[in-house]
Amino acid sequence: MTVTPPSQDAESYVVGVDFGTLSGRAVVVRVRDGEEVGSAVHTYPHGVIERELPTTGEVLPPDWALQHPEDWREVLRTAVPAAVAASGVDPASVIGIATDFTACTVLPVRADGTPLAETALGERPHAWPKLWKHHAAQDQADRINHLAHLRAEKWISRYGGRISAEWQYAKALQVLEEDPAVYAHTERWIEAADWIVWQLAGVETRNTCTAGYKGIHQDGRYPGEDYLAALHPDFADFARTRLEHPLSPLGSRAGSLTPEAAAWTGLPEGIAVATGNVDAHVAAPAARAVENGRLLAIMGTSTCHVVNGATLADVPGICGVVDGGIVEGAYGYEAGQSAVGDIFAWWLRQGVPADYLAEAEATGEDLHQLLTRKIADQPVGGHGLIALDWMNGNRSTLVDHHLSGVIVGLTLATRPEEIYRALLEATAYGTRTIVDALEQGGVPVTEFIVTGGLKKNALLMQIYADVLRRPVSLAESAQGPALGSAIHAAVAAGAHPDVRTAATAMGRVQHGAYQPDTARADAYDELYAEYRLLHEHFGTGPDKQLHRLRRLRNAALSQKSEV
Amino acid sequence: MTVTPPSQDAESYVVGVDFGTLSGRAVVVRVRDGEEVGSAVHTYPHGVIERELPTTGEVLPPDWALQHPEDWREVLRTAVPAAVAASGVDPASVIGIATDFTACTVLPVRADGTPLAETALGERPHAWPKLWKHHAAQDQADRINHLAHLRAEKWISRYGGRISAEWQYAKALQVLEEDPAVYAHTERWIEAADWIVWQLAGVETRNTCTAGYKGIHQDGRYPGEDYLAALHPDFADFARTRLEHPLSPLGSRAGSLTPEAAAWTGLPEGIAVATGNVDAHVAAPAARAVENGRLLAIMGTSTCHVVNGATLADVPGICGVVDGGIVEGAYGYEAGQSAVGDIFAWWLRQGVPADYLAEAEATGEDLHQLLTRKIADQPVGGHGLIALDWMNGNRSTLVDHHLSGVIVGLTLATRPEEIYRALLEATAYGTRTIVDALEQGGVPVTEFIVTGGLKKNALLMQIYADVLRRPVSLAESAQGPALGSAIHAAVAAGAHPDVRTAATAMGRVQHGAYQPDTARADAYDELYAEYRLLHEHFGTGPDKQLHRLRRLRNAALSQKSEV
Repeated sequence: MTVTPPSQDAESYVVGVDFGTLSGRAVVVRVRDGEEVGSAVHTYPHGVIERELPTTGEVLPPDWALQHPEDWREVLRTAVPAAVAASGVDPASVIGIATDFTACTVLPVRADGTPLAETALGERPHAWPKLWKHHAAQDQADRINHLAHLRAEKWISRYGGRISAEWQYAKALQVLEEDPAVYAHTERWIEAADWIVWQLAGVETRNTCTAGYKGIHQDGRYPGEDYLAALHPDFADFARTRLEHPLSPLGSRAGSLTPEAAAWTGLPEGIAVATGNVDAHVAAPAARAVENGRLLAIMGTSTCHVVNGATLADVPGICGVVDGGIVEGAYGYEAGQSAVGDIFAWWLRQGVPADYLAEAEATGEDLHQLLTRKIADQPVGGHGLIALDWMNGNRSTLVDHHLSGVIVGLTLATRPEEIYRALLEATAYGTRTIVDALEQGGVPVTEFIVTGGLKKNALLMQIYADVLRRPVSLAESAQGPALGSAIHAAVAAGAHPDVRTAATAMGRVQHGAYQPDTARADAYDELYAEYRLLHEHFGTGPDKQLHRLRRLRNAALSQKSEV
Repeated sequence: MTVTPPSQDAESYVVGVDFGTLSGRAVVVRVRDGEEVGSAVHTYPHGVIERELPTTGEVLPPDWALQHPEDWREVLRTAVPAAVAASGVDPASVIGIATDFTACTVLPVRADGTPLAETALGERPHAWPKLWKHHAAQDQADRINHLAHLRAEKWISRYGGRISAEWQYAKALQVLEEDPAVYAHTERWIEAADWIVWQLAGVETRNTCTAGYKGIHQDGRYPGEDYLAALHPDFADFARTRLEHPLSPLGSRAGSLTPEAAAWTGLPEGIAVATGNVDAHVAAPAARAVENGRLLAIMGTSTCHVVNGATLADVPGICGVVDGGIVEGAYGYEAGQSAVGDIFAWWLRQGVPADYLAEAEATGEDLHQLLTRKIADQPVGGHGLIALDWMNGNRSTLVDHHLSGVIVGLTLATRPEEIYRALLEATAYGTRTIVDALEQGGVPVTEFIVTGGLKKNALLMQIYADVLRRPVSLAESAQGPALGSAIHAAVAAGAHPDVRTAATAMGRVQHGAYQPDTARADAYDELYAEYRLLHEHFGTGPDKQLHRLRRLRNAALSQKSEV
């Protein structure tokens, strides 16, 4: 009689859950080889809350973006069991679950984890979770940065010299200053990435990734109380009382699935729950982008760039560098573009001509396909346009969410598909700016790998290869973050010894799927030079025109709401 | 027995015919009081020829715009008799006909007036009439201007320091340089405004208006042969051989209706045919805008501004100043915006969302009305946008058709109606730039009067009043140029002694129809300052980015057509 090792006895599975901006996606993955055997998506009923508060109907100010915690729980209750059902896998063979989240999506909670939005304070906008793209705390971010440079805080250089308005401190300071009562009831200020783990495992944890990139945790500590006090006297104990907690490395076991969460998900009680993670960073092992120099661009509504480096370098304008921020044992660099797919969708919402709509209906194309077909063969530069991809601000390398989009070169002959293409190209120029900043800052980029929904867009991928003058590799999985979470779940469950090993077993990438064309790359070099001129004029020049226009806009709109 | 003066015996009528960019319009007008008793429109079958030559299907290069002479004759054959029929007036009571035309729309003809486009040369693009908005001669215009300043030609200051690429010399020089064979067969180079009179009266005439504004006829002469020779040796005799002809003042009698033209139009043979005129300038008496300081803005696809002044002033960036260019006895100043209504139409062609289209269909609004309703109540500046209205270049005050449009301040929240409004405002800022230039240049503007199709747009008119901080008066006639032509026909026929007297009898204006609002005007002052900054950066700054983008575009597109 032969003894069969348990790991070959029966297949084991893990569940990865990716909480995106508009929906949550669960995927069931085979531990042995990363095969995705079932998945399901749940769209958040409340989506992005930008116009009015669900509880009271109060109109929100410009640049706000909130979410509803119940939408997130609902993903656990619906998408996870649906994915298991779709897979046909026996739930008993699932050995772990891991989650990843948009970041910095952050919320005020009680000491027991109850979101303030779900208490009597839920009538106040500041009690609600602030989505990553809540951009109303730029004033706070400006002061955070000004003070950090004034005091020569060592940590500021780890963030490209600028802390984003999207992150934990700016958002928390906005709560304190605009609604002190909500702030006073905020017992913990927690990333949704960690909050969702709390729901699954019943214990508060804090992951190294969000603590480092969004929470300014560097060299073992948060910013000091004297610095925080200088921002606002009542902010002095913010980190100590609302954030401080031992950090858990990525891929570690946060705890075990609680009976309640087991009931929600249909998974076995007591299985491993992995430490929280961020949708971008978690995707790196799914594309085997864990070795130093392999940059992963997670391209969807926005783009996040993550790459590991062997050394600690200060790169101006990146989002951050965190020791072990992507995998243990390397410096994880993050950069980003605040809107990418969102820009293309925005343009389609401006509308396309009625005869295009009719044509798309006749051919069965979606509008992206239609515009792509009409413009893909135009020679580079044939539209005469340059756009700045700042319709949602600029995360890297300017870290300025008071910027806005620009299109130049419009003529009466300009067609919708030409603007569409100019917008695709603008995001490629934005990416080139980031890759150049990394390399000039001392972080080699040896491969450019794309994951996320936009990797299906062949014109976009070819434009990126031509603009970057580099091959573009593609992650093979259609659901990089969810697969990445599943990989972390497998590690947390002990099925693989570490994330690198798990990535080799479970991740997949198609190297060099798109190759640059020299003639097109040459033409794009000329256009990129024009993009850089616009970038300098509107982004870093002395005349802050886009800032003024935004102030005038906000003043005009608040004037109206006062009427 | 009482002798009744003939003028009261029976009513007399005149016919005015306005040749626009897309159609020709005839109106029958009572001589006594300007009452418009009938009108008809004929749309040119060939419209604006921008893509391919009708004879050969040859693809035209970028920025070309041609027209078909037969389309113009067809207006005489169809719209004139239709207008008379609609009026119910006995054709025998019509005592004169006058015409006005877009300018500089210009064509090469044989000595007998036959358009080269209608000869065997019609297979060559340069044989065709070049429409005013043919913008492919900017290189020639640049050299014309450079040389004029180099030689300190006295006439250059009469044109704001710059001769437009739209005018007679740039277009003719382009023919000479790009198709010398066509140039060699060009016996006369004639404005369509004069050519159409040739068709009616059978004699060549040249009017003071186009000769002055578009033909550089100043102080009794055209530019000298040495200047022209310096542009190109074969261009030396251009003015002497192709243009020179005694000039006829506006409102004078060019000749009598020929039997052939009488057959076309159904009007009596031998009636007065007035000297040719330009659609903008001819409209001034229709709005009683003939007294000094009363600026008339003719607002349609583009805008032309005409105003009389008592003195000769050099205003930088205006189109021109011509003694008697609008009425005898005053200096007529002209300025213009190359696209206005065309910009709004362009934006609607980019498309509006499908649900907007459905809404418009349900409410019976056109798209302009729908977008206006959605945006009219937004506080000034609430969209955060500034646009440069250069989608068809800039006629005044930059005189540069290599410029193109710009939109800044775009966000993911920007809606189609917000861009629409920003475009309306951009044209108002462009107008303010022109009015300010006139006043600063020494030409007082005492009243701002609007005629043309856009005066119906109440939001646009209010924006103009607010941006200009001035009341906006409206010409009462819906067909200002055609009525203006009719007024000139009445003078040519001897029914009124001069254009001023005829204007008082036959023109009508509603003074101060729109009044500025102080609060909105204050808010617009801030936005106008932003417009001016963009204007300087992209229009007059050292970095000619828009020029480079156009060159890259044209190079890319010509590369394609070579494939």
